[in-house]
Amino acid sequence: MKKEEITILGAGLIGTLMSIYLRKQGLPVKIYDKRPDMRKSKRYEGGRSINMALSHRGWKSLEEVGLKDRVIPLAIPMYGRRIHDEHGGTSLIPYGKEGQAIYSISRGKFNQLLVEEAENLGVEMLFDHKCEEVDFRDQTIHFSGPEGNFKKEAPVIIGADGAYSSLRMSMQKQIRFNYRQEYISHGYKELTIPATADGEFAMDPNALHIWPRGKFMLIALPNPDKSFTCTLFLPFEGTKVCFDKINDAGDLKSVFKAFFPDAYELMPDLTEEYFKNPTSALINVECYPWVQGHSLLIGDASHAMVPFYGQGMNCGFEDCRVLNGLINKYGHNSWDLVFEKFQKTRKPDTDAICQLAMENFVEMRDTVADPKFLIRKKIETKLNELYPKDWVPLYSMVTFSDMSYSEAYAQGQLQDSIMRQVMADPLITENWNRLDYEEIINKMETAKAV
Amino acid sequence: MKKEEITILGAGLIGTLMSIYLRKQGLPVKIYDKRPDMRKSKRYEGGRSINMALSHRGWKSLEEVGLKDRVIPLAIPMYGRRIHDEHGGTSLIPYGKEGQAIYSISRGKFNQLLVEEAENLGVEMLFDHKCEEVDFRDQTIHFSGPEGNFKKEAPVIIGADGAYSSLRMSMQKQIRFNYRQEYISHGYKELTIPATADGEFAMDPNALHIWPRGKFMLIALPNPDKSFTCTLFLPFEGTKVCFDKINDAGDLKSVFKAFFPDAYELMPDLTEEYFKNPTSALINVECYPWVQGHSLLIGDASHAMVPFYGQGMNCGFEDCRVLNGLINKYGHNSWDLVFEKFQKTRKPDTDAICQLAMENFVEMRDTVADPKFLIRKKIETKLNELYPKDWVPLYSMVTFSDMSYSEAYAQGQLQDSIMRQVMADPLITENWNRLDYEEIINKMETAKAV
Repeated sequence: MKKEEITILGAGLIGTLMSIYLRKQGLPVKIYDKRPDMRKSKRYEGGRSINMALSHRGWKSLEEVGLKDRVIPLAIPMYGRRIHDEHGGTSLIPYGKEGQAIYSISRGKFNQLLVEEAENLGVEMLFDHKCEEVDFRDQTIHFSGPEGNFKKEAPVIIGADGAYSSLRMSMQKQIRFNYRQEYISHGYKELTIPATADGEFAMDPNALHIWPRGKFMLIALPNPDKSFTCTLFLPFEGTKVCFDKINDAGDLKSVFKAFFPDAYELMPDLTEEYFKNPTSALINVECYPWVQGHSLLIGDASHAMVPFYGQGMNCGFEDCRVLNGLINKYGHNSWDLVFEKFQKTRKPDTDAICQLAMENFVEMRDTVADPKFLIRKKIETKLNELYPKDWVPLYSMVTFSDMSYSEAYAQGQLQDSIMRQVMADPLITENWNRLDYEEIINKMETAKAV
Repeated sequence: MKKEEITILGAGLIGTLMSIYLRKQGLPVKIYDKRPDMRKSKRYEGGRSINMALSHRGWKSLEEVGLKDRVIPLAIPMYGRRIHDEHGGTSLIPYGKEGQAIYSISRGKFNQLLVEEAENLGVEMLFDHKCEEVDFRDQTIHFSGPEGNFKKEAPVIIGADGAYSSLRMSMQKQIRFNYRQEYISHGYKELTIPATADGEFAMDPNALHIWPRGKFMLIALPNPDKSFTCTLFLPFEGTKVCFDKINDAGDLKSVFKAFFPDAYELMPDLTEEYFKNPTSALINVECYPWVQGHSLLIGDASHAMVPFYGQGMNCGFEDCRVLNGLINKYGHNSWDLVFEKFQKTRKPDTDAICQLAMENFVEMRDTVADPKFLIRKKIETKLNELYPKDWVPLYSMVTFSDMSYSEAYAQGQLQDSIMRQVMADPLITENWNRLDYEEIINKMETAKAV
């Protein structure tokens, strides 16, 4: 039986990884992307892409398709959050156990590697092709491309076309499609801390740097060229520090000198970059169903999340792995069943990580600066050392395991209710090392049994 | 100064009423609608339009533009809900005080009256014109019409183009537009109880008839031709009574004979209608902002609600009245200010009524059949008689007043918490008439003061 061609929309990280999975199954794959070929353009050279943090789920998929070793050289391990206070002092909060890290990687080179690998495996790539509309009655796609508009039959479509997905836009016009897009009140702007004059990193390269300032923050991730990509998150408008209130070099300087004095010293191009780079918005997208006929949404197209848990790409890569597993299980001609199983099993997980990403923004910009947060981290680390199976901190379940996001979320809720009780002790700062750790674990067991 | 032309999208009830308001202000107005002229087509002759219930807010707007007297002949007062039990027995639950009613009106003739009135006032109507896209950079609209595609400048645009608004679709592509569309698990189908052989109403015409059956229901509203328009609400799919499980005349007959035996006797065309008429879905839409440049969404385009509070049209008419009031206040050349004030003041109210409409579905299909619900109604009626200013039942605040929906919602929440305490008395069925009513009112006062 002839295998049906699979059409993927979007040659980003998720679309290309999915194409690699499918080619390894022996399936014919074509990818269309509205953007020009990244190898011929400069679109990734800064301005709008937050550096990403590759963690366990992402690596697991890369390993499965045999790409892990080729990605490692592009990635820089970050073992913890380095917190910068207002006076330039810093402290490190480890992400997990010794040796556990998330990996800073920049989108451009990573995407290029995946595009090349896909092409080498026989995936046909068509850039500059915009999907205008998908007609689900006859599974056809209307494209506009360099040779004008045309219509193409596509028996199986996978939409990996991102937060502004055009496949999803067509689905939205179908009856009984539930959809939600929500912008948060903060925007972001990319800035740079370049390498020092003698070509070295200007700060500790093996950490994710955070300047948490309550309602806003600055972060910085290392790059292989020894620069850091910084991202400034501010409210768009308001009465205090916000994008609307920074209108000239003077405003900018006074904000940075007051709140990020150590970073300011390391940013010679601050003013130029700030006023040249766009201020971008942050969207959360949830929808359901993800399937319409033989068309399926994956990645940001079905669940775009805010970037504060560092899981957008990792979750999308896990989508690819889960979908590949279902194709393995049900075969190459059971798309109805595969797609239905995929959306049913995966939706609760992506809902959970979208929610966690939203909640983690408060942690990153505010809670990490609270001394009590450090105490809580220490208690949870110790619980994990003493009872490695019974207490894995939420961050670790999400970042360093492939436990389902929804299970991690549920366990995290339990942990949180117990830790609130523990932290209510007014002497916790002195006593944290002398707690009855077994009792805490017992509470967890009791709560789970309920 | 020359007055800018106002472009309204949608010649439905809200668009035409808005155009009448604007013409009375002396403003030039054009309406575009993608559908054919209703006066030349038969599109309203049944099949998909739930009969509507005109109530205080709707009448108030009609009165303001001088149309109340012309609409009265089209409307039939319904003084209460007539509840039908499984054995054909009925009882009436009044909607409000004596004389208070909601008015059954069918969309077709009502809409036609508004179109004609608008034309008489000088509104230019263009049917068969579909808005394909609005470009906010230069305030232009791309239309496709009988003479092909064209682009038109439109300095002021009001989108009254309904739950599937094309203006909103264009706004959705703008950054920072928050949007949510949600379908409920139930669908609906329109059916008919015709006039009797001797040309009379087959049931009490001055009531809204409900057959509440827990997870599903049938309702019927009277028409001037002495028929009733019925609407069957069922879950789309499930294990019990649902649209998916009714596949032939036999299935249909057994459901109707078991659950709606008295209605069944009055529906000679049931089978034919059931399998001919479409099963439609019910959407809730919320979005924000409603404004982009000089374009504004009103009515269902900005807040489509489920029909269970009978407020969709009334709320849309109130939108028109509120917007007109702001234009009066700020003048004909302050669209930025008028639109901004409109969305800021109106959004909390439409959120409240969307929420109430969703909650009222449970009341209609389930709670009204509970004897305790009747007791509670009686207590609240008595409270209202004794303390007409301090206790107005939620339904009356929404339906028989023009208190803001958000204020009604907040008061309703308070009432509900107090009535839950009152109803917790195990002897309430016997004691309801001997309660300390003053104490209940005092509780309300105390709660409000908090």
